[in-house]
Amino acid sequence: MKKNSIILYIVGILLIFESAFLLLPLAVSLIYSDGNWMWYLLTIFICIILGFPLTRIKRGKHLSLQEGYIIVALCWIVLSLIGALPLMLSGDIPNYIDALFETVSGFTTTGASILSDVTLLSRSGMFWRSFMHWIGGMGVFMFMMAILPMLGTSDMNLMKAESTGPSVERIVPHVRDTARLMYGMYFGITLAEIISLLITGMDLYSSALLTFGSVGTGGFGMVNESCGTYTTAQQNVIAFFMAASGINYTFYFFLISGKIKEAFHIEEVKYYLGIIITSTILIAFNVSKLYGSFGDAFHHSFFQVASIMTTTGYSTADFDAWPELSRTILLMLMMIGGCSGSTAGGIKVYRIVLLMKQFKKELSVLRHPREVKMLRMDGNTVKESVIRSTNVFISIYFVIFFISLLFLSIENYDFTTGFTAVTATINNIGPGLSLVGPTCNYGFFSVFSKIILIFDMLTGRLELFPVLLLFSMLHTKRR
Amino acid sequence: MKKNSIILYIVGILLIFESAFLLLPLAVSLIYSDGNWMWYLLTIFICIILGFPLTRIKRGKHLSLQEGYIIVALCWIVLSLIGALPLMLSGDIPNYIDALFETVSGFTTTGASILSDVTLLSRSGMFWRSFMHWIGGMGVFMFMMAILPMLGTSDMNLMKAESTGPSVERIVPHVRDTARLMYGMYFGITLAEIISLLITGMDLYSSALLTFGSVGTGGFGMVNESCGTYTTAQQNVIAFFMAASGINYTFYFFLISGKIKEAFHIEEVKYYLGIIITSTILIAFNVSKLYGSFGDAFHHSFFQVASIMTTTGYSTADFDAWPELSRTILLMLMMIGGCSGSTAGGIKVYRIVLLMKQFKKELSVLRHPREVKMLRMDGNTVKESVIRSTNVFISIYFVIFFISLLFLSIENYDFTTGFTAVTATINNIGPGLSLVGPTCNYGFFSVFSKIILIFDMLTGRLELFPVLLLFSMLHTKRR
Repeated sequence: MKKNSIILYIVGILLIFESAFLLLPLAVSLIYSDGNWMWYLLTIFICIILGFPLTRIKRGKHLSLQEGYIIVALCWIVLSLIGALPLMLSGDIPNYIDALFETVSGFTTTGASILSDVTLLSRSGMFWRSFMHWIGGMGVFMFMMAILPMLGTSDMNLMKAESTGPSVERIVPHVRDTARLMYGMYFGITLAEIISLLITGMDLYSSALLTFGSVGTGGFGMVNESCGTYTTAQQNVIAFFMAASGINYTFYFFLISGKIKEAFHIEEVKYYLGIIITSTILIAFNVSKLYGSFGDAFHHSFFQVASIMTTTGYSTADFDAWPELSRTILLMLMMIGGCSGSTAGGIKVYRIVLLMKQFKKELSVLRHPREVKMLRMDGNTVKESVIRSTNVFISIYFVIFFISLLFLSIENYDFTTGFTAVTATINNIGPGLSLVGPTCNYGFFSVFSKIILIFDMLTGRLELFPVLLLFSMLHTKRR
Repeated sequence: MKKNSIILYIVGILLIFESAFLLLPLAVSLIYSDGNWMWYLLTIFICIILGFPLTRIKRGKHLSLQEGYIIVALCWIVLSLIGALPLMLSGDIPNYIDALFETVSGFTTTGASILSDVTLLSRSGMFWRSFMHWIGGMGVFMFMMAILPMLGTSDMNLMKAESTGPSVERIVPHVRDTARLMYGMYFGITLAEIISLLITGMDLYSSALLTFGSVGTGGFGMVNESCGTYTTAQQNVIAFFMAASGINYTFYFFLISGKIKEAFHIEEVKYYLGIIITSTILIAFNVSKLYGSFGDAFHHSFFQVASIMTTTGYSTADFDAWPELSRTILLMLMMIGGCSGSTAGGIKVYRIVLLMKQFKKELSVLRHPREVKMLRMDGNTVKESVIRSTNVFISIYFVIFFISLLFLSIENYDFTTGFTAVTATINNIGPGLSLVGPTCNYGFFSVFSKIILIFDMLTGRLELFPVLLLFSMLHTKRR
């Protein structure tokens, strides 16, 4: 009972926070007088009426890691269920499952849309949709912890469950200070991009929305051509900030602490940058015939690589029409994803590097059976438990992948569509190839397939364990 | 120096064995007087001239596991390089790379062909091609060990390197006795299928070749329609023996030892049979509209499932034209493959079951952090080293998979073709989907792509480590 009361308490806090987030689209609605303000106000009331009593519940103080995982999964689901309401009520997306798909896609920073014409959205609806990226990018618990003293020692377990990558390190001793610092840097990067876009001549509304989409590595656009209609300078600003948002935030912490050398010595960051540069060059050569000059090809290649590798999903070109080599490189980048401790999705560069090191170690064990060798990252020995959970993560990732593919195949669309729809949702990217390519949308899928993809987006964002644990709990309880 | 001399000695023995194997197609050529006998005789001479001096070399006695792996990889490459000669010299496949592709496909029991018209092959060429399946199925080292006392204690390391599955258990105490018992059962199943096919009215030549293809889980056919032109009874015999060949041979050992109950309690076998039955029923329902009756649909479904799950690759229907759900199920079966300790390829049911158990354990650790739980298979605790190497295996499997896909994509064929070509070769199946579907062949790929696929077939058959270790050795030596 005591356990359940903590869960309810935290859901209550979450709802209060969601009501606060909803004030922004409410304000946008009033400013642009698009007539939807009452729906945002209504949802705010619902949040408060449901949430406030829950925060008054008497409760225990300690949360295990397992409970942390379950609460985070549960809260992300509640956040999405409520967040979809104003989109449906305002008529922006009248079907609730569609609105939920769009909302989960927003919070999980996927950016996959069911809309065939984005421009039909109201000003407030479009704002709310993109703002979800910004909230989900760094994480809603991270935000709650930065502001409130939550549950003391248990906060670490919530942070672990919501953050990306195999192991969260507190960059400063206290969880709360870490959360503040992370959001501080997040704010900084957000502001820097908005200002840069304003300088290129973009209006504030568009600058803000595109910034939410890129620093949160989300990918919801404002026009049907994604980023194809903006100037080269604007595209370059967006590409730069996308690439920057896929970097482990520890990098920026080192930078602002003046430890420039240490920053560039983080192994994961070195590999991340190496992959971006190599892929950009390979694709630029591969597509050079399609564009007027190599410079143009390079520009589009870099934008697409930065967008896909960071799992953002913005595009300046229809890469579904690119040659197969470029498409395959992009598909692999989709799976790799960004750095751990960033806002990007995917398997994460850290895990891939760890895998390669393990493989080298296994070969070396075969060659020198008596030599005891430890796996090292950034000079430190990697804990056995991190290695084990990384391996299980990657294997389970593929298991969920193929089960989702199986369910999707019931609808009888072509293989590339099903395969890349799962890839693009479980890695929180947005566009795939073929029928879900950058010029298309997810609206044509059945309700059943949409629910599978919603599950994939949540599982991908929360890195499998929280969602699977929640489901296994429900399963056990029912028995 | 002493080390190298063991390697040379074993290569020598292998060549003598290959010359003995070549006596069979030589005999077939003489019986049917197809005029190719001199090419087989010439290759036999080459084997003896190269091999005999090597067997006279003074040598050490001990082989480490690493050396076992490297020798096995090297020998399989030598076996294929020589085995391709008569196919080229006789003009059956005039291009050497094509002949090599066909030979590697034969020995690795893949069954992928570059021939657009199989019926143009000479009688001896067609026999040699199918006979390779039979040799490669149980393994050439297993055969050598069954006949010769090789290197005593080191034999276990050679057996480990060549067998399928994460851990070979000697079913009887001595390696040599194990090898004899395995080949004994292999002979028994082979004879049983030949006799069954003779009873259905098939001639001896066809019965033998189709048997080699099914008990070796290879898949080379004799007509361009694979198994589509045979009678229902003949197809059922083939399907039954394919399914039987994907079972762990320990099952048969228990059966002939009278331990019926133990045989059906092997966990891997239970899961294997469960997967076959479930998939057959699902696909039968999915394709029932395409066939006259549910019985017909079930017949074709079972044949295709047995063929694909055991990575044989025979077909009675063009499953590339089946609905997407059936295609996706087949694709997943391709990756899972048969049981460890069988002649089938793929990841193996054992590894998949181990993965699922690990995942359940990880969830349970999260829920009950203090409980120490061991992974069990068939009631025994699974060793930590087996779990670790299984995880690395599955992860590296996908890494090799995607790198091969990347290389193949340079040729700019569609995604399904590239994806399933890699799937079908690395899992030693044969046909994939789209351009490499059951009615097509691999002849259209460039030499570069063929070499990639040859590498995939060898890596898949020898389960990654031997081939990768060989390459890493070459790399180190060059430095």
